[in-house]
This record gives sequence, C-alpha cells and structure tokens, in this order.
Amino acid sequence: MNDKVRLASVGLGRWAKVLARGAQRGDVIELHSCFSRSEEKRNAFREEFSVPKAAATFDELLADPEVEGVLVTTPNDTHREMILAALDAGKAVYTDKPIAHTLEDAMAISDAVTRSGLVFAVGHSARRLSGHRMMKQWIDTGSLGNVSLAEANFSNERGLELTTDTWRWYADKSPGGTLIQLGVHHADTLQYLLGPVAAVSAHVRRLYTASEVPDATMAILEFESGALGYLGCGWASPGVYQMRLQGTEANLQYDLDFTHWDESHLADDWSSLVSQAYRESVRTPVDLPRTDMFREQLEEFALAIRGEATVEVGAEDAIRALAIVRAALESSAARGAAIELRPLLDSIGVAAS
Amino acid sequence: MNDKVRLASVGLGRWAKVLARGAQRGDVIELHSCFSRSEEKRNAFREEFSVPKAAATFDELLADPEVEGVLVTTPNDTHREMILAALDAGKAVYTDKPIAHTLEDAMAISDAVTRSGLVFAVGHSARRLSGHRMMKQWIDTGSLGNVSLAEANFSNERGLELTTDTWRWYADKSPGGTLIQLGVHHADTLQYLLGPVAAVSAHVRRLYTASEVPDATMAILEFESGALGYLGCGWASPGVYQMRLQGTEANLQYDLDFTHWDESHLADDWSSLVSQAYRESVRTPVDLPRTDMFREQLEEFALAIRGEATVEVGAEDAIRALAIVRAALESSAARGAAIELRPLLDSIGVAAS
Repeated sequence: MNDKVRLASVGLGRWAKVLARGAQRGDVIELHSCFSRSEEKRNAFREEFSVPKAAATFDELLADPEVEGVLVTTPNDTHREMILAALDAGKAVYTDKPIAHTLEDAMAISDAVTRSGLVFAVGHSARRLSGHRMMKQWIDTGSLGNVSLAEANFSNERGLELTTDTWRWYADKSPGGTLIQLGVHHADTLQYLLGPVAAVSAHVRRLYTASEVPDATMAILEFESGALGYLGCGWASPGVYQMRLQGTEANLQYDLDFTHWDESHLADDWSSLVSQAYRESVRTPVDLPRTDMFREQLEEFALAIRGEATVEVGAEDAIRALAIVRAALESSAARGAAIELRPLLDSIGVAAS
Repeated sequence: MNDKVRLASVGLGRWAKVLARGAQRGDVIELHSCFSRSEEKRNAFREEFSVPKAAATFDELLADPEVEGVLVTTPNDTHREMILAALDAGKAVYTDKPIAHTLEDAMAISDAVTRSGLVFAVGHSARRLSGHRMMKQWIDTGSLGNVSLAEANFSNERGLELTTDTWRWYADKSPGGTLIQLGVHHADTLQYLLGPVAAVSAHVRRLYTASEVPDATMAILEFESGALGYLGCGWASPGVYQMRLQGTEANLQYDLDFTHWDESHLADDWSSLVSQAYRESVRTPVDLPRTDMFREQLEEFALAIRGEATVEVGAEDAIRALAIVRAALESSAARGAAIELRPLLDSIGVAAS
C-alpha cells in the first residue's frame, strides 16, 4: 500500500506491542506516532517499531494532523477520558476490550462516537479466531441444527499473581476481575454466534486471589433464541480456553492454548475444533484455515477510516458484551436471580436488535 | 467363591441385563431368581443368564427364602413400592439411580431402610470410573491445590427419540428429564469429589424434545467449601460426558465416550484424563487403571449382605444427589434464584455432614 493509514499508539505496555506487531505484519498501517507518560517507554517503543514520532503529551499526539487514528491500550478505567479526547480531536479510535470498566463510561463513549461520526472499533478479537469463525459457519449453514447448549470457559492463573501495583488488583478499576478481563471475550463471541442474551444468572466469588477482585465466576446466559449458555471464568488455576456448542445435528468443541495468543498469526496452530455428529461418538477434527485476529481487526479499522471497510465490532456489540459482565455481578449480588439485559440496555439507550 | 450370594433381578429390561453381565464377570454373585410381569421376558432372562428360577409374581420372588437380595431396575416412579415390599420381606436391596423420582419417595425409602436394618445400595456407579477415582486421589493428596471451579456435562440425543410408550416421556414419572436421568450421576460424583453442595441456581428448558420433560438444563452449584460447580445436561445433541476440575496447582479434565458405558469392564478404555500443571499449557495424560463399576458395586452390595463389605453409596448420598435435581427445578421456577439445600434436607430429615 503506497499511502498507508497513519495510526498512533497510546499506552505503550505489553499489549501495545502485541498490536504493533500485528499491524506490522501487513502493509496497510504506518505506526506514525506514540505516547506514554514514561519517556523511557516512548523512546523504547519508537525504536522497536521504527515509529517516526513520539509525542511528549497526549495533547501533542492528538494535535498532529498526520495522525488519522489512535490505538488505545491504557487501563480500562481510563478509556473514557482517552477516547473522548481523541474523538474531540477528530481522530478515529480503536480501543482494546472491554470498551470501558463500567456501562456508564461505555455509554458515554458510545454517545461521543455517534456525535463525532468518526470510526470507532473495539478489540473483541476472539470472535475472529478460526475456530469461532468456523462455528459461525456451521450455525449459519444449519450443520449444527438447533443449538440448545453453549458452554465456554476462559481461565488462567493471573489472579494468584496480581500485585498492588497493577490496576487489575482493584475492584473499582476492574470490577468483575476474571469476568471483565477474560469472560468479556466469550460474552462477545457467544452473542456473535447465537444472538443476543436476554438474561444472566451468576455467582461471582473471590476465593484464592489476594487482590480485591473475583477469581471464580460462573454465569448462565439465557439467549433470546431459547438456548442456554454457560460462561465460566477462573483466575486461580492453569489456563483454559474452551467453547462447546451442542446442536440437534452436531456438537462442536473448540480448544485453544492461549499462551500463544499474542502471536495471533500463529494462534490457530495452537487450537483444535472437533465435530461430533448425531448418534456418533467419534470426534472428527475440523480443518481450520489460518487467521490473524490482531492484524485483521487493525487493518479493518484503518481501512474503515479511509471508507474502504466496515468495522465489525463497534460500540454496540462491545456494550452488549460488557452488559453481561454487569448483569452477572448484579445477579450474584441477588443470589443468582436472573437479571434481564433489556432494561439495562434500555437505560443506556441501546435499541432492541 | 463356594457359597455365592444369591440375588434376584426385578424389572428385566436392558439395564437388568447390563447389571447381570457385570455380576457374572465375577464369582461372588449367583443370580438366583428373576421377575418381570412379562412371562416372555422372564423366560428369556432366565435362559440368557442361566438363572435357576423365574418367579411368576413379585410376591413369589420375595417369599423365596433362598433370595438374599433384590436388584431393582424398574422405572424410577415404581422404586418406592418395589423397595418397601422387598425390605418388608427381609431382603437387602440394590436399586439403580436415581433412588426415586421424588424426594418424598426417596425419604420414605430411606426411612424404611433404617427401620429394617437391611443392606441398601444405590447404583451411583459413575463415581467408580477410574477417571473420577483418580480425581479424588489428586484432591486428597493435594495435587490439585484448592479447587475453585468444577464443570461437568452429561448429554445425549435421547430427548429427541423419546416416544409416548416410555415412562421417560412423562413429567410426573421423570421430573427433570435429562437432569434426573443423566445429571444425577454428576450430582453424586461432584459431591463425592468436593463435598456437599450448599445451594443451586438453575435454568431448565424444554426446547427440542417432543416429550413432556426438559432437554436443556444448566445449574450452578455452590459448594460448602466455597468452590463453584457447573452441571450441564442436554437431551437434544450428540453425547457428551465430561468433567473438569480447576485447582490452584493443576487442572484435570476427564472425557468419556459413554457409548461403551454398558460394558463397564471396558469403559475406562474409552476415557481419558489429562492434567495441566500451574503455569503450564501442556496437557499430560494420566494413566488410568482399569475398573469395572457395575461388577464392583454389585459385589460390594453382595458382600455387605454377608457382613464382608460396606456399601459406598446408600440412601443418604443418593438423596443428596436427588436434592440437587429438586433444587435445580425449584430454582428454575424462581428464575435462577439460589435454592439452599439445607432446608430441603432438613425437611426430609437428612442431618448436616
């Protein structure tokens, strides 16, 4: 591409680097500028990714007319402030998931996006994994039949290793702990696959983490379709990333070793999808074409800025995923009683689908 | 064994034959008599398993002083009547799971057992599978660390194939459908592994079966230990039998192809248990010594009659498993609100453990 889309990275931690590598696997994006409050981080990032500019302040970055869009990877509770400032400056925005740490912040972001008319994308990348794309294809072609049960688990040992110097330790910055950090991925992917969730029943516990946030959560999702979904997320055990769909014609079970998640051009190599047909016990591997979720979502964002693509996951889908986290927390406080999503979504202005 | 324990089979359907084959793989039990209302079935069973006698009535079978114990495999809603009659006649009783179709019947059975002082066993065989025995060993030795999440699923396509001429079609004979037929296995095994469940939140649906009973159920179990459990049971998809335990030191995942369940001396060959250590993504197969759950539970029952063994699963454990089914149905009627098991167990006289 001769005229690359010029993006700027903000919040130059581990995740900014993962995304930078994704962007640089293609030739659509130029990382044109970057900003972190730490000068050392700025310079290191600039050097590692050959970024032409490093801004001394966020305002300086936003004032740069060359920058077409901003990639936000700062802590969840700073998303609102960062994103609103970027939109005010006329920049398109990509933010990592979750869209924000609260539904109120998420809705403020969504309103600002609508007012601005600018391109906005949220990094719910997991649905782009080859296994999930294949699940969607099996659903759409009727190969699964009618799905009655969908189970998903995303867990790792992070909760046992948190320290007070990370924002993820604190309940006010990361409400829901494992549920908002890991579970929100499946909350998006399950709705991508099976349509909107109507209500959530959940139990959320803080068991073995020293931090303030839950490390053991289980939620039952009632889909509008009638199907039941399960979402389990732990933060106090070895890693699990799994999803199973059970249909009247077949089951599909997906497993991913997410220790290779960061190198998203290789992630599919560390995954397996197996199918099981009606009345069969044999499980048959399903061939998974290789994808590259981080590169794909960033290039889609970049091309959307130029009017040459459409963003797949914007504010609405991201809010629907976050609403499941919120509903789960409310349900747990109500000892499992189902919390309807419709009133929650109405209260923040998300229309029925 | 020179002096075999003389048992009699009652209800001579498919399951009676599975158990008879289990008993005849050893030399502890003599199938001495049998009864079904169908003379044709009686004669066929007598011939197939070389049973000395076939009784023309249940009373005739119970009046036979040679018969030391009765194996009940009649429909769930007949258990109470059959078992009480057998106990009245002074016979030890083995019944298949669930102990009964209602908690009220289960408690009447339990009371009669206590009054009689006779040996009583319930066929919650699944906990005897090698994979579950190994899970128990890993828990007891501390190899799993502290378990925070336990997930189990038992599903098959039965609900799509039910017809009006089977008792499983009817809600009054099989309340809970897939949950009482399949889920009650895991309800026992999970409590065997992790101790008593304190409360249950569930959603129970009738989606794709033509019958009267649920074919899609999901329950969250709150264990007294603090751990959370999940129990998913479908009756409208290809078969699944799975359990995963997530601990602070390791995860264990168990998979069984239960199409080979009936031949319990081979069942372990169709199963796999894999472990995953803290901070590791690699899954390591765990060696599973071969077991034979049906033979084992029947020989234990037979030897207990002679005072040479102790029954592992009696009325109390069976009632605790059934109480989870009942609580799940009540919770679903209350839109997921947690139903405490303690008041339920108190109301039927089961003491705290």
